[in-house]
Amino acid sequence: MRIDVYFTPNSVTQKKVEDCQVVIIDALRASTTIVTALANGARAIIPVAETSAAVEVRAKLGVEHVLLGGEHQGVKIENFDLGNSPLEYTKEVVKDKVIAMRTTNGTRPYTMLRYNRAVRVGSFLNLSATVKYVCGNGADLALICAGNNGDFSLEDTLAAGAIIDGLADSMVCEIALNDSAKLAALHFNASRERLLATITESEHGKHLTSLGFADDIAFAAQVDTYDVSPRFEGGQISIADPDDSSTDDTMRIKGLEL
Amino acid sequence: MRIDVYFTPNSVTQKKVEDCQVVIIDALRASTTIVTALANGARAIIPVAETSAAVEVRAKLGVEHVLLGGEHQGVKIENFDLGNSPLEYTKEVVKDKVIAMRTTNGTRPYTMLRYNRAVRVGSFLNLSATVKYVCGNGADLALICAGNNGDFSLEDTLAAGAIIDGLADSMVCEIALNDSAKLAALHFNASRERLLATITESEHGKHLTSLGFADDIAFAAQVDTYDVSPRFEGGQISIADPDDSSTDDTMRIKGLEL
Repeated sequence: MRIDVYFTPNSVTQKKVEDCQVVIIDALRASTTIVTALANGARAIIPVAETSAAVEVRAKLGVEHVLLGGEHQGVKIENFDLGNSPLEYTKEVVKDKVIAMRTTNGTRPYTMLRYNRAVRVGSFLNLSATVKYVCGNGADLALICAGNNGDFSLEDTLAAGAIIDGLADSMVCEIALNDSAKLAALHFNASRERLLATITESEHGKHLTSLGFADDIAFAAQVDTYDVSPRFEGGQISIADPDDSSTDDTMRIKGLEL
Repeated sequence: MRIDVYFTPNSVTQKKVEDCQVVIIDALRASTTIVTALANGARAIIPVAETSAAVEVRAKLGVEHVLLGGEHQGVKIENFDLGNSPLEYTKEVVKDKVIAMRTTNGTRPYTMLRYNRAVRVGSFLNLSATVKYVCGNGADLALICAGNNGDFSLEDTLAAGAIIDGLADSMVCEIALNDSAKLAALHFNASRERLLATITESEHGKHLTSLGFADDIAFAAQVDTYDVSPRFEGGQISIADPDDSSTDDTMRIKGLEL
């Protein structure tokens, strides 16, 4: 299996990923928030590129079914129900809801490309479930880091490195790493004993701490809290059976017409 | 001193570098070739964005003064005198010549932005001279890696890490690293005992080896072969006194009107 890490969405092109399975990583905070919301019973997440698209989803599916979540440049969006902190996405709030989500970095990789193969949501919270899925799928892997406003982000690369490390441990086949995947693996191996400190000391970690979101960092640095591997298909993210590596069945939001 | 590493020119903007001194790094091969050519007595290197611009420089300065060098997508350019291998740029060939140079990755950072402060050429070959200059200048530092066709490149990041390591050893002041600078430093520290092997195993290293340029890699992995810190100013690169941290004198190619 060939593993390519993309440090930012800007470095990805359609051609580079079209024959790969893909894992999209935004450790602080969208991937963590999506995994948490789905593990807490949300029906689906619909990642959107613009605030107006989130409002349209709500109008289409009905206000009783849909919550709007996310942020723009770190600030909760006016008239949205939820921000981008995973701690907001509790069972009480999200159960059976569809969440239309727009964030600065984390939702962009879902909307910017057309994917031909499986796309999964990766974070520390569902590390082992992600590794298990990728391993079972077996196709070459593209790990797309959401980055930080188009720039490299340490915490996403760390999560990519953690996935590579897990694959290296569990794969029976050979894995081949591109330059950035090598560096991600090195980074994780150097930081595995102090994940929380490394993330807290990152640029994004410091920024979130300054905004009062230190608890989010501690939450996002937890490994294997949830045994789920959410999949993105047909414009929406939902929980799939981790053993199911097929991608050809069409997805629908159960009971709702999108 | 704040140190920011940019893994590719695509991640740099005018605003990000305008208050910084800058070191441009293309370890394989433009920085190495430029440093070698100047150490071997070339008057100046004029980095250009297009093949036609190199031809114009020759027409303007006179064919007897100018050599055209470089490559496009790894291939020597038709009617150019030299490719992009540093081993071609011997004293016999380059002494007293101006070299108009166009390469796929390495010359782009010179032509794409307007720099307000000092710009230097960084490579393993002139590592200590680069560190000495940067330290004396004292301004915040942007290390711009040329990358590989817009993608991250391991060897440029390794050279950036080597510069950071040298600065950490020699600075009396505190240095603050952005996320990518932290990773570059980590990478160099993990690879310092096996620089050549690390570069040889990189994507670009493997590609050059397959093209028959393995000797170039061994040449580029040498540390401190030359005690020069070439500076880029007024559209040209030439050797400056390593102790001279002023940038306000205008540069001219001695005896030639550009």
